[in-house]
Amino acid sequence: MPVPPRAQPPSRIQIERPAPLVDCGRYPAKRTLGDVVTVSADVFSDGHDVLRAVVRSCAPGADGWREAPMQRIDAHVDGDRWAGEFEVSELGRWTWTIEAWTDAFASWRDELGRKLSFGQEDLSGELSEGAVLLQDAARRAEGADRKLIQDALTLLTDPATPAQAKHETALGPELFAAVARHPDRHESTVMEGGLHVEVDRVRARFGSWYELFPRSWGGLKGVAEQVPKLAELGFDVLYLPPVHPIGHTNRKGPNNALRAGADDPGSPWAIGDETGGHTALHPELGTFEDFDALVRVAGEEEIDIAMDFAIQCSADHPWLTEHPEWFNRRPDGTLKYAENPPKKYQDIYNVNFACEDWRGLWQALLDVVLFWVGHGVKVFRVDNPHTKPIAFWEWLIAEVRRHDREVVFLAEAFTRAAMMRTLAKVGFSQSYTYFTWKSGRHELIEYVVELATSGMQDFYRPNFFANTPDILTAELVHGGPPKFASRLVLAATLSPTYGIYSGYESFENVPVKPGSEEYLDSEKYEAKERALDGPLLPLVSELNAIRRANPALQRLDNVLFLGTENDALIAYAKRTGDNTLICVVTLDPVHGQEGSVMIPFELGLPPAFTVTDLLSGEQFDWRMGPNYVALDPFRVAHVLRVER
Amino acid sequence: MPVPPRAQPPSRIQIERPAPLVDCGRYPAKRTLGDVVTVSADVFSDGHDVLRAVVRSCAPGADGWREAPMQRIDAHVDGDRWAGEFEVSELGRWTWTIEAWTDAFASWRDELGRKLSFGQEDLSGELSEGAVLLQDAARRAEGADRKLIQDALTLLTDPATPAQAKHETALGPELFAAVARHPDRHESTVMEGGLHVEVDRVRARFGSWYELFPRSWGGLKGVAEQVPKLAELGFDVLYLPPVHPIGHTNRKGPNNALRAGADDPGSPWAIGDETGGHTALHPELGTFEDFDALVRVAGEEEIDIAMDFAIQCSADHPWLTEHPEWFNRRPDGTLKYAENPPKKYQDIYNVNFACEDWRGLWQALLDVVLFWVGHGVKVFRVDNPHTKPIAFWEWLIAEVRRHDREVVFLAEAFTRAAMMRTLAKVGFSQSYTYFTWKSGRHELIEYVVELATSGMQDFYRPNFFANTPDILTAELVHGGPPKFASRLVLAATLSPTYGIYSGYESFENVPVKPGSEEYLDSEKYEAKERALDGPLLPLVSELNAIRRANPALQRLDNVLFLGTENDALIAYAKRTGDNTLICVVTLDPVHGQEGSVMIPFELGLPPAFTVTDLLSGEQFDWRMGPNYVALDPFRVAHVLRVER
Repeated sequence: MPVPPRAQPPSRIQIERPAPLVDCGRYPAKRTLGDVVTVSADVFSDGHDVLRAVVRSCAPGADGWREAPMQRIDAHVDGDRWAGEFEVSELGRWTWTIEAWTDAFASWRDELGRKLSFGQEDLSGELSEGAVLLQDAARRAEGADRKLIQDALTLLTDPATPAQAKHETALGPELFAAVARHPDRHESTVMEGGLHVEVDRVRARFGSWYELFPRSWGGLKGVAEQVPKLAELGFDVLYLPPVHPIGHTNRKGPNNALRAGADDPGSPWAIGDETGGHTALHPELGTFEDFDALVRVAGEEEIDIAMDFAIQCSADHPWLTEHPEWFNRRPDGTLKYAENPPKKYQDIYNVNFACEDWRGLWQALLDVVLFWVGHGVKVFRVDNPHTKPIAFWEWLIAEVRRHDREVVFLAEAFTRAAMMRTLAKVGFSQSYTYFTWKSGRHELIEYVVELATSGMQDFYRPNFFANTPDILTAELVHGGPPKFASRLVLAATLSPTYGIYSGYESFENVPVKPGSEEYLDSEKYEAKERALDGPLLPLVSELNAIRRANPALQRLDNVLFLGTENDALIAYAKRTGDNTLICVVTLDPVHGQEGSVMIPFELGLPPAFTVTDLLSGEQFDWRMGPNYVALDPFRVAHVLRVER
Repeated sequence: MPVPPRAQPPSRIQIERPAPLVDCGRYPAKRTLGDVVTVSADVFSDGHDVLRAVVRSCAPGADGWREAPMQRIDAHVDGDRWAGEFEVSELGRWTWTIEAWTDAFASWRDELGRKLSFGQEDLSGELSEGAVLLQDAARRAEGADRKLIQDALTLLTDPATPAQAKHETALGPELFAAVARHPDRHESTVMEGGLHVEVDRVRARFGSWYELFPRSWGGLKGVAEQVPKLAELGFDVLYLPPVHPIGHTNRKGPNNALRAGADDPGSPWAIGDETGGHTALHPELGTFEDFDALVRVAGEEEIDIAMDFAIQCSADHPWLTEHPEWFNRRPDGTLKYAENPPKKYQDIYNVNFACEDWRGLWQALLDVVLFWVGHGVKVFRVDNPHTKPIAFWEWLIAEVRRHDREVVFLAEAFTRAAMMRTLAKVGFSQSYTYFTWKSGRHELIEYVVELATSGMQDFYRPNFFANTPDILTAELVHGGPPKFASRLVLAATLSPTYGIYSGYESFENVPVKPGSEEYLDSEKYEAKERALDGPLLPLVSELNAIRRANPALQRLDNVLFLGTENDALIAYAKRTGDNTLICVVTLDPVHGQEGSVMIPFELGLPPAFTVTDLLSGEQFDWRMGPNYVALDPFRVAHVLRVER
């Protein structure tokens, strides 16, 4: 390394450890429309010079940068952490960076002030330095500022002016402000490499989901009739399992039986028959006219229709004959159905993402998604994304967003943590989680703290489904209605996005066999008659209304768990601006439980305050420190709003 | 983003979160010669294929890569973390990366085994797949492996062979091993970007330092006479404050007086007079012959001479006349002496690293270091590096290492954390620390845990000086001999590198005034008569011998703090291979203290074991769980070795 071959020496300013940062900048951090993005970094230099820093941000597709000042934070801890913010007012990928420079005039003024306060008398040398700085500043300034700076300069260099007046002028706030408005940034330092923030619409972060099988509700027309009621209940997303034709070959019967009876409808995930595949509708569900009408009616209520995107084909899917090269075959030419021994999925075939015509296959899959986007679908729940290549998802999601930036993707991956994290990083807007299996106080806290504070909050948006057609937990099986209620409160108040699968509101809790998480007579394999009349719906409706009215419940990273002095009670606060909620939930579906909720200093509440239970309407006097609570199976939670 | 324009689809394998990683790879991780470097990463893919991974390493200047297998670790926690290792057998910058691929034969074998164990009977389709894989493997293999694979292939494809025999052959360990020796890596995935490990000599990590002012020991000749005794005491580095001529102008008198008397020698850090500057020796200390003799004598005892590199000049330094353009001047032409109001350093001038001739200045400073390297100096203690540009240090250290890779740099920066961390990252081999000011149990643990486990262990090597000419802490002032002893034990057993400044061994503890950390009649401003006869030297000698004999004390990242049930006692274990030490130190210099040292399961010791106190020679029976200890001002520590 020879002496660096530049005219100027390398910068003295370091800009390090920028945040938010996901995998060293390989992936963008995620935010939603209208968010104020706070960025921070260590910004420092050798010596004692005063530094200035700004965050510069560039909207998607814009050529210009906007900038906002950064401020030193946590001065008492370390002193070199700076933070600034910008609002993301457009969807898409924003770029940001940090620029910092030495403020020579402020440094000089600071030193002059210290010398005066320590009693130094002869400051003529110092004043001569200041004069040079003011000459420079006057050249950069204009109008009134220029005049003010020039006047100060004249005064400082006039031998007749008393020292006292010179010092007062030099240290005056007006001069300081005038110079600060025209900074000398020609030797400023810019952070290496821009970082990215991917901005989704708010639905990617916040929403209440309801999942139903259209065939149990009278097909697409029947579903459309439920929309006003779903809107009244406060749902934002209506998720439909696959609506495509279902294969005949090896069709599954009730309770996953290997042989279906003549009238058995089969699993909607065995996609495709001779009438069509991923871009067709099951004839018994309705027509495209019905589908478009459903999307329209839902849209009028600001409800998104979420479709299932499951990349697998029944033996009767047109692709098997049109594109046999897309599927896995044995050397003897036979097709390989999907399996993970000992599990077998004899009714479906997986595509081979690495087949010779992989480009054609990938494009066809993209075309499927774009087809439904063309029918107004803006949310896709992706089935088992972890069994398909990550690079495929990164490509597909980017392509879809190029066509329509509003599209939201939910990853249904229940697998090891690294895969789940990476799917989120490469583009999935939301992700299923381990929430259903976190039942104890300690494990719930540990898991939510990880989601909210470990760095995951910058790229992983949880969707807390309380149940799914695949997951009926032992807790629900044995806990009965009080457990259904408490898990609902937990899902709806811990996570900005949560969902229930139809039947939850009716406390459906019979497994196919003891110890199984599969429902008995699962709707996956047979049609039911369903209606929106479950006894839990009033609580659902209340919670959804509370979620909409309280911004604190629309975020995850603001959660703070509170001591309860009883492990059967879990308590947490969420605060956003002036909106502070305190939730207390019993984990015991059988016995009454008493405890004390500890309000800590760091929550920033006054010594005494009033809370309103948004579920019961009651008010209580609470205070910093311990607050007595008692919950039981008939009252499973307090959702308390702090009154100011 | 169109479909990726490649013949093959993008890799299915992810290699993420590699470690060690310093600032996203901007800086190398540090290790010392002979270390086994353990690297790890998340390595995973979609689906259930068996993966293989290797770590590839490249020695400095080598063109070839060596590789070693990686293994999955912590399978129960997450399952996707892999680790591997390589030994660094040369000084300099090593490069490493990770390569991973899908093992198609192992994946097939794994699936076949699962199907057999779950009772599937017809496996003919599966066997036809295996035959194709074996054909490929046979093409890659040679010699005996090839024959073994071909024989298996013949058997698997022979219609006459019974299924049972085919299955046994397919699953046999010999076939598996033969195929594994010839992996198909043509679609392997290599981690993006190589990472670096900077390998220093062992002295950069492990060593015992002694600091003395040569003028108090009869100059360079007198110092050379002390070398055998210092070697006997177990010191590895002898650090000398500046040995250059001292300026006359504004020379400081005793106790930092603004005016020096005629016979006052001045501060060695006011470098340079009319006889020379940074490449000259103070005439009263001796000649270059004496200096070279000292380096030689020390070298014979494997002691490094550490020189001070202080970039500042007295008013009489030749550079002020030869290169006036290198110094800060006021607009009126007057020189600016060093200051940080209200502190003033009237006897020294700082250079201007950003002056017009900055290239000439930087080169001259490099030449100073190389001059002393030419005289056999391999260790530099750099004075106040945080007041000079970081880019300068990064350049200078790299340049010096290009000439001599053995040179070690110690950063004497006491400033905010970000600057201290960054100096270490850009190249300083070791760093001063906040250790002297960490006196309580809690703050000591917090600080050492940060140094050892926060990621700092990969780039920041602490040098725990128990005192310095600038730092006489209140603890030492008030704690007397027991405190000197306990702080010595802490420094020598917590940090692989530690040091004392001459006088520590004699319990020197009188400050220039109450509350000051400056010594009364500091050696910085006057010469003393010194000898190696302090009452603490026997303990120093014992500790240095214990440090050399026990590898566990030569590392930092192996420290585990132990409960003591008494905040006046601190206890910690260090383990390296079979060598486990348990240190217990009292923090109370006045009263006796009792407590229980908790031996946790994670230390991996048997339920009961014997420990030998390496300071007293006594043996004790210890066990998992609590172990009674009692220490007092006459016995301030146990340094216990676990016997196996």
